[in-house]
Amino acid sequence: MSAAAGSASDRPLAIAITTGEPGGVGPELTAAALAAARERWPSAHFTVLGDRELLTARAGGAWPAAIEIEHHALAVPAQAGKLNAANGRYVLGLLDAAIDGAVSGRFDAIVTAPLQKSTINDAGVPFTGHTEYLAERTNTPRVVMMLAGTGERPLRVALATTHLPLKDVSSALSIDGLVETLTIVDHALRAHFGLAAPRILVTGLNPHAGENGYLGREEIDVITPALERARARGIDAPGPYPADTLFQPRYLKDADCVLAMFHDQGLPVLKYATFGEGINVTLGLPIIRTSVDHGTALDLAGTGRADPGSMIAAIDAAVTMARHKRSA
Amino acid sequence: MSAAAGSASDRPLAIAITTGEPGGVGPELTAAALAAARERWPSAHFTVLGDRELLTARAGGAWPAAIEIEHHALAVPAQAGKLNAANGRYVLGLLDAAIDGAVSGRFDAIVTAPLQKSTINDAGVPFTGHTEYLAERTNTPRVVMMLAGTGERPLRVALATTHLPLKDVSSALSIDGLVETLTIVDHALRAHFGLAAPRILVTGLNPHAGENGYLGREEIDVITPALERARARGIDAPGPYPADTLFQPRYLKDADCVLAMFHDQGLPVLKYATFGEGINVTLGLPIIRTSVDHGTALDLAGTGRADPGSMIAAIDAAVTMARHKRSA
Repeated sequence: MSAAAGSASDRPLAIAITTGEPGGVGPELTAAALAAARERWPSAHFTVLGDRELLTARAGGAWPAAIEIEHHALAVPAQAGKLNAANGRYVLGLLDAAIDGAVSGRFDAIVTAPLQKSTINDAGVPFTGHTEYLAERTNTPRVVMMLAGTGERPLRVALATTHLPLKDVSSALSIDGLVETLTIVDHALRAHFGLAAPRILVTGLNPHAGENGYLGREEIDVITPALERARARGIDAPGPYPADTLFQPRYLKDADCVLAMFHDQGLPVLKYATFGEGINVTLGLPIIRTSVDHGTALDLAGTGRADPGSMIAAIDAAVTMARHKRSA
Repeated sequence: MSAAAGSASDRPLAIAITTGEPGGVGPELTAAALAAARERWPSAHFTVLGDRELLTARAGGAWPAAIEIEHHALAVPAQAGKLNAANGRYVLGLLDAAIDGAVSGRFDAIVTAPLQKSTINDAGVPFTGHTEYLAERTNTPRVVMMLAGTGERPLRVALATTHLPLKDVSSALSIDGLVETLTIVDHALRAHFGLAAPRILVTGLNPHAGENGYLGREEIDVITPALERARARGIDAPGPYPADTLFQPRYLKDADCVLAMFHDQGLPVLKYATFGEGINVTLGLPIIRTSVDHGTALDLAGTGRADPGSMIAAIDAAVTMARHKRSA
């Protein structure tokens, strides 16, 4: 870490955690994950955003004294497993506070527990997802969703398109868009993941990457020209490769990231490989944001049986990315 | 095995192996795989279809005496690593002989080594692939491509659509087509895989299986009605599930097969999980056919370095399926 005396980089890394939907597993996963994270990152400072009474109850009646809660009051008491639109603005308030704190430099990174879109929408606020909201609130024209495993050389999968009907994927791809996406991924891998020469393997859109145009032309008309332009910018992005060839361990071992063209081309392998310990990272924002790769698991809320693995991994990733950013 | 004295089921199982493209790895993989298969299946009879001189040369100069070659002469000598359209009709001739033998009852199953479509097309014969050709030659209106791993409870993935441009997938799905596909898969799992009560997990088409229509309507308009109709026929086919949820080990452990809606939704996981030891099975034919899940690997032909794992697995599957069919 490069630290000039008295500079901001002297202070401990500050990580904000939004506890998300109060009816879901976010509060208890946060408590469980922080028990692990405090041991792994003793010099980091964690701030948990949520209702103190709720968090204490979901932590089993006693909140660890050493972990700061930034109290935001629920509008109405929350029941485990139940959604209540009356708390929709509470959920959004946690997110706003974390984003504002990250933009102002108070937080080095934010980690988000799962929320329920319908709770916010039913409160009268149009909301399509964490990622889109973060982009809008930070005036970021393009963000990239990346999911990642854990470990020494984890599988990482970034997506060229995300939550679109399958039939709209082809028309959503463009040369400019792919070049921007690759630029964002390449930059993030260097600045936030500490990779000096990241290699991004790129899939085709069609089966067998189009088989020279017999099974679709997007590889020829869009993806290959985009890769040529990205390579001219110094981005190491070979492809397009057939997805079912590329996602074999013998090819993945030479990759720092895969750029898949759409959701169900890239994420099934990632989820299969990571056994629910994967994380979601939003690239291209002016702030660092990681999250779990699962939902609110209402059926498990309040039982203490939800697995904190993904939350622990999301916190690990946030700390690691923030360290790389500081030392960059 | 139920065997009436003097019936056809008294004779050893007869398995035909087509050695495919003579410039590729098929001939040497067949030799290597049969060395293993003979020990595993001492009571089965294997017939290898190909040019005797070619097979002997690619087997390292000596063909195992105990394994029958049904000699089909090359049109011109074949060079490892080189394609020659002059041998296109030779490749097709192997396939025709195997199919005819299986249809007549001489063979209980056929295993196909990889061929190169262009060799056949360049010989003036329109040819889109093994699977399509097998369907046409046996007058089968609908076949289903299934890829599978090996082991006790292997991952199996069947596809509702196969080699189509991605943008055409949505319009290729229909209620009738999905019901037929599920019927074929269910029947094959019972008759050829020995499963008394097969369970087939079905994916959605869109991200998150369409999220109640927000991300596409095919789940509501096509897939769900098809599943209802299939279930009314006694087929255990729950879904549609988000592909990135379904393909997690904790869900797969309750499945005998996954039906994915399209190629790159199902096969990347399968290939990732099977490490190149997967096999390809064509369901719905009146004959049993298995194959490797890889191509001709021209760069490895003649080196002896190609991995026979998938070919061994394809032979194992053919023998096992043929045994189940006899005892059914």
